[in-house]
Amino acid sequence: MKLQFAMDTLTTQAALELAAAAAPHVDILELGTPLIKSAGLSAVTAVKSAHPDKIVFADLKTMDAGELEAEIAFAAGADLVSVLGSAGDSTILGAVKAAKKHGKGIVVDLIGVADKPARAKEVVALGVEFVEMHAGLDEQAEEGFTFSTLLRDGEASGVPFSVAGGITASTIAAVQQSGARVAVAGGAIYGAPDVGVAAATLRAAIV
Amino acid sequence: MKLQFAMDTLTTQAALELAAAAAPHVDILELGTPLIKSAGLSAVTAVKSAHPDKIVFADLKTMDAGELEAEIAFAAGADLVSVLGSAGDSTILGAVKAAKKHGKGIVVDLIGVADKPARAKEVVALGVEFVEMHAGLDEQAEEGFTFSTLLRDGEASGVPFSVAGGITASTIAAVQQSGARVAVAGGAIYGAPDVGVAAATLRAAIV
Repeated sequence: MKLQFAMDTLTTQAALELAAAAAPHVDILELGTPLIKSAGLSAVTAVKSAHPDKIVFADLKTMDAGELEAEIAFAAGADLVSVLGSAGDSTILGAVKAAKKHGKGIVVDLIGVADKPARAKEVVALGVEFVEMHAGLDEQAEEGFTFSTLLRDGEASGVPFSVAGGITASTIAAVQQSGARVAVAGGAIYGAPDVGVAAATLRAAIV
Repeated sequence: MKLQFAMDTLTTQAALELAAAAAPHVDILELGTPLIKSAGLSAVTAVKSAHPDKIVFADLKTMDAGELEAEIAFAAGADLVSVLGSAGDSTILGAVKAAKKHGKGIVVDLIGVADKPARAKEVVALGVEFVEMHAGLDEQAEEGFTFSTLLRDGEASGVPFSVAGGITASTIAAVQQSGARVAVAGGAIYGAPDVGVAAATLRAAIV
């Protein structure tokens, strides 16, 4: 199982500092949606240039203009680009077309989708690399939130999936047991006193 | 009815040129989602600085981190910020909180939402300014597309709404007759040989 670090920050400089500290321990460096909207795709270029050996994930959460948005993100250096599962199939197909042109991949983020396993099967058939079983930051803050549903949805989907929704060192083993291809950690790394130690701890919890 | 110009371009410089040509004839200058992702929120600041008398709409299409994304867009100079109708209520409420703090407004973009009138009522009750009955660029390119459904959905919603989906000088009268508060035009303006003339023609078609 790969470890993806979601860098939820707002400036390219902050992202570069987080990436430098965590890179030795993670496989995928993710530029969060607010970071990309705030700083633009030059942030993707900066992170990829600093870490050419890492998979760089641009969390665009595309809802429309699938081919165009994916194209500019791949051109900026992204290896993986996200499209929303609630987007129309033509948007997802457009993004997949851009990915094929660049030899890169599209990830469909299932945040906000009611029946995640069903939509997961549909979008993998459209050519996406894998789906993200994702509870967003706002959903995580809601009372009674638990991400066990995400793991069940991933298992039920029968397709390659990642899991994102507040994963910590004490829960990452359960994510691995669910068969996830990728575990996405954000706050558990960037919110820790020592980003490198936190990333190494998560890595060590993957067997 | 107000006229909104959706600037679907990719650089701040191109947006400033489009805005300069169209501004005398439109009420709202919209920075499209790919533009914001490509150039960052500094594009919003640049357009607002050049046109302080215009309403500047940042088409963020927020799906998560509602308060944060709206906050940084308002801080950058936006007067209106969009959140997706398929986002959770907590995301929309977070964005509305940021809007109230700044004395600005949230628009919910209903792209991809199956029952637009029902969701429109729900989100206006959450405190959003108005909803956008929206067929995206990808949906417009699908065979058999017509935006008459958007007008019927707007009328059925009973709440303030805008319409976006390939509006031209020959269809804008029907949009006005549906009771729309705002008509959003993109390609009909930026795709015209003379951007200023195209914007003026649309404006003249509003009675």
